[in-house]
Amino acid sequence: MREEVHSGWKHRLHEIIYEADTPLGRFFDIALVFLIIVSVVLVMLESVKEVDQNYHDLLLTLEWVVTIFFTVEYFARIISLKKPFKYIFSFYGIIDFVSTIPLYLSYLFAGSQVLLAVRAFRLLRIFRILKLVKFLGEASQLKAALKASRAKIAVFIYVVLILSVIMGTIMYLIESDEAGFTSIPRSIYWTIVTLTTVGYGDIAPQTNLGQFIATIIMVLGYGIIAVPTGIVTVEFSRHGKNNKGRSVVHSNTQACPSCSAEGHRDNAKHCYSCGYHL
Amino acid sequence: MREEVHSGWKHRLHEIIYEADTPLGRFFDIALVFLIIVSVVLVMLESVKEVDQNYHDLLLTLEWVVTIFFTVEYFARIISLKKPFKYIFSFYGIIDFVSTIPLYLSYLFAGSQVLLAVRAFRLLRIFRILKLVKFLGEASQLKAALKASRAKIAVFIYVVLILSVIMGTIMYLIESDEAGFTSIPRSIYWTIVTLTTVGYGDIAPQTNLGQFIATIIMVLGYGIIAVPTGIVTVEFSRHGKNNKGRSVVHSNTQACPSCSAEGHRDNAKHCYSCGYHL
Amino acid sequence: MREEVHSGWKHRLHEIIYEADTPLGRFFDIALVFLIIVSVVLVMLESVKEVDQNYHDLLLTLEWVVTIFFTVEYFARIISLKKPFKYIFSFYGIIDFVSTIPLYLSYLFAGSQVLLAVRAFRLLRIFRILKLVKFLGEASQLKAALKASRAKIAVFIYVVLILSVIMGTIMYLIESDEAGFTSIPRSIYWTIVTLTTVGYGDIAPQTNLGQFIATIIMVLGYGIIAVPTGIVTVEFSRHGKNNKGRSVVHSNTQACPSCSAEGHRDNAKHCYSCGYHL
Amino acid sequence: MREEVHSGWKHRLHEIIYEADTPLGRFFDIALVFLIIVSVVLVMLESVKEVDQNYHDLLLTLEWVVTIFFTVEYFARIISLKKPFKYIFSFYGIIDFVSTIPLYLSYLFAGSQVLLAVRAFRLLRIFRILKLVKFLGEASQLKAALKASRAKIAVFIYVVLILSVIMGTIMYLIESDEAGFTSIPRSIYWTIVTLTTVGYGDIAPQTNLGQFIATIIMVLGYGIIAVPTGIVTVEFSRHGKNNKGRSVVHSNTQACPSCSAEGHRDNAKHCYSCGYHL
Repeated sequence: MREEVHSGWKHRLHEIIYEADTPLGRFFDIALVFLIIVSVVLVMLESVKEVDQNYHDLLLTLEWVVTIFFTVEYFARIISLKKPFKYIFSFYGIIDFVSTIPLYLSYLFAGSQVLLAVRAFRLLRIFRILKLVKFLGEASQLKAALKASRAKIAVFIYVVLILSVIMGTIMYLIESDEAGFTSIPRSIYWTIVTLTTVGYGDIAPQTNLGQFIATIIMVLGYGIIAVPTGIVTVEFSRHGKNNKGRSVVHSNTQACPSCSAEGHRDNAKHCYSCGYHL
Repeated sequence: MREEVHSGWKHRLHEIIYEADTPLGRFFDIALVFLIIVSVVLVMLESVKEVDQNYHDLLLTLEWVVTIFFTVEYFARIISLKKPFKYIFSFYGIIDFVSTIPLYLSYLFAGSQVLLAVRAFRLLRIFRILKLVKFLGEASQLKAALKASRAKIAVFIYVVLILSVIMGTIMYLIESDEAGFTSIPRSIYWTIVTLTTVGYGDIAPQTNLGQFIATIIMVLGYGIIAVPTGIVTVEFSRHGKNNKGRSVVHSNTQACPSCSAEGHRDNAKHCYSCGYHL
Repeated sequence: MREEVHSGWKHRLHEIIYEADTPLGRFFDIALVFLIIVSVVLVMLESVKEVDQNYHDLLLTLEWVVTIFFTVEYFARIISLKKPFKYIFSFYGIIDFVSTIPLYLSYLFAGSQVLLAVRAFRLLRIFRILKLVKFLGEASQLKAALKASRAKIAVFIYVVLILSVIMGTIMYLIESDEAGFTSIPRSIYWTIVTLTTVGYGDIAPQTNLGQFIATIIMVLGYGIIAVPTGIVTVEFSRHGKNNKGRSVVHSNTQACPSCSAEGHRDNAKHCYSCGYHL
Repeated sequence: MREEVHSGWKHRLHEIIYEADTPLGRFFDIALVFLIIVSVVLVMLESVKEVDQNYHDLLLTLEWVVTIFFTVEYFARIISLKKPFKYIFSFYGIIDFVSTIPLYLSYLFAGSQVLLAVRAFRLLRIFRILKLVKFLGEASQLKAALKASRAKIAVFIYVVLILSVIMGTIMYLIESDEAGFTSIPRSIYWTIVTLTTVGYGDIAPQTNLGQFIATIIMVLGYGIIAVPTGIVTVEFSRHGKNNKGRSVVHSNTQACPSCSAEGHRDNAKHCYSCGYHL
């Protein structure tokens, strides 16, 4: 009997933390997004010297508030699951842990202040809450199209990399150290800067031959951008057409209370991953 | 009786200012476009020190001519409408007001010379007169296609922003202050400069690891431009096809004399927005 | 009788110069392309100080050879036509004249050496000879597709320009003279440099707010490139489809001996432009 | 009899080196890819001064190991073929030779250390082994699409080059030497840097007119990137459609023992190139 009550309490907690179909669950998710953004803004402001000097104490206090909330939330996530280890070692479990720990570590170890910037990774947590957003369908469509063109894009990147190494080596032979081409890796860095049309200008060819070859690299880079664009466009248009004939499974924001798997069908009775009764 | 005459006079004014189907209305619009362009060129020339020193009086005189015309036009727009407040607080109403006021303000308040540059916003007024242009159909087609791909583009920009914050933080940890990565916001600025392949070169990585990660950011930026391109292309091609089966409503340049709503059907008898008899 | 002989001689000259269906006509065109490229390379080499100092006499001699050939060719073109004035004031007629005259002018007028660089425009003459090339069909297909998307691209460029003026003015208000934003036209120049993702870095925002707005301009520029790409892609794909159902008229390289109009049908008996018997 | 044994031994060698259908052949190819990557990394590390000073002996020893393996492999490739000369003077035969020789040459000739960087070209050898990779089908599809749009892309590059020469010459006339426009070739270099939106900033226009024309070049470059993108996209989408109705020939990784031609059909009995019984 007590087990059942306990179960019910756990179940409600699970619903609030992991799902967004109830008002409380929705409120929890919105609050979490807000806190994540606040905490990332805090990390940014701390890194600006002038701001940190004037408002150090305020920033630290706010950071403690956020960290304590995240700590409580982390343990609540573990408690509310039947099989917490699967969560702890999952991608989001590790992100949650890494998002929470830095402030504590900065007191334990002297040199670990550097790690505080790691808190910016908290931003990745937002992706989990994306399930709330109505744009989810669009995102998954984009993902599917990109996945389908994965192999072609891999071939493309492979050719670009080989091209960069070969061209970078040629430029290293042609250009002197004074122009900034001090080693082959640096020449390759310059080649990629040029091929992708970024063009910082910190390294730039000085000789006539070097500038001529640079010209070829630029026109190549300018032209071959058409290849991934073509691939992705065709895949997008194919995907859109295929979709019409495909039966769509409507999913909700429920998560399995046992293993925290997500994306269950609207009328699912058992978790598709561990079989737990939802 | 006098009311009717007054009405007729107002109605003609309305036709001239807000519509372009009569010769006078067309002439008014062309003159307005000309004056807007002249006034924006004046603003530009004033900001060039050498020009302002030599031709200050000429520029000021011309500016007064333009401002007085705009003042008269602003009041004429208000008078010719039955419900002027709807116009005054509309987007174009505010733009018109902001376009007219700066020169007067510069005499009233000492420090408000800075505001004179705001007159460049007069350029936005041209958009209203675009209704004259035969390209309007094309513009609305572009707008519809972009609107349809809005959600996908939002997802894309969202992913780009998260990527920029994460990558910017990593670069802040790797690169020193000397290279220009003085704070996380500045590192994020650099990341966006690199990801969008702009590449100013005012900030550029100095360490080997920094240059390696910069390379990854560049290739990413070079590649993911394919995503919005693919989205928009597919939407354009879909839109073009859908259009063929759709019944097109021909609209004219009439504007409602009561509420200044635009885009009425060719044979419309009542304003679609306020029901006023056209 | 003599007239007829004269006519025959003129006709043969016309065939050699304006057409490429006979072996001599083909040889003439190839020789002309070769001479045009040689003369443009000469112009380039002359502009390089070290080369000009060492080989000034050789370059000048070669330039005289080219100029004399072009002079003879120009008069031959005029003589071989029945209505030479139409040619003289046509686009290619003016290009031919401007290509020939600079060297003579440099001896007549002291300061006109500057004009010698105008000879680089000779390159435009190559376009006329393009009719030889088998790629011509492809070029005209590209041209047709671009022409069809002309209106949409005009709207796009119009929006980009307005955006540049507004954004440039905002940046002028935010950034100081020290950062390089000395006037509104220069700010607009910077905005276009940023929006098109060129990013020289000669002018770069220094303030936080300026860098934030620069970031927005970059993402805008990075994203809206998708619009012309989408327009052109859809037009290309539409054009390709339309072509299949269209009856193609085969044209040859004949040119009308009277008015030099080109692109006649294979079995044409009269010039489509002036009705002259071919 | 002995001939046959010899033949069998040669045949096994051939299978290991040139094919990847047997376990040994697969292992050989993977080992070769590994050694190629190691050797290219060695070349890169040698070019970094600090690394070369500290680990010169280690790098040299490893380089000798790789070179000896490549030497043995090169001779094994020649021995195992019936008609070795066809291989020796083939593209890959020359690449293999050039990949092997530099270290020997650096001992024979004093000044030939420079040639050591040529070893980076070993990377090209990887392309041969690509036949192992499942992405091969994708690569050949990309290649076919690019080949089909070859003529259109040639026209495009031709127009871009003419545009660059004309615009470069105009900028040379407008801008002074101080801004970096010291000769027409350098101005053309700058034009291509700008047109391809690379934008180093080592050369940048200083005059108002120069910046205005630079703006035009940028907008042109920003816009015409749409052309190759459109061409390639349409070709990709056409190719994808055509493929569906085409009978696909499944090929394996066998290579002809006589002439080393590759890409035989799965059930081929004779080499399609020299007729040798497989």
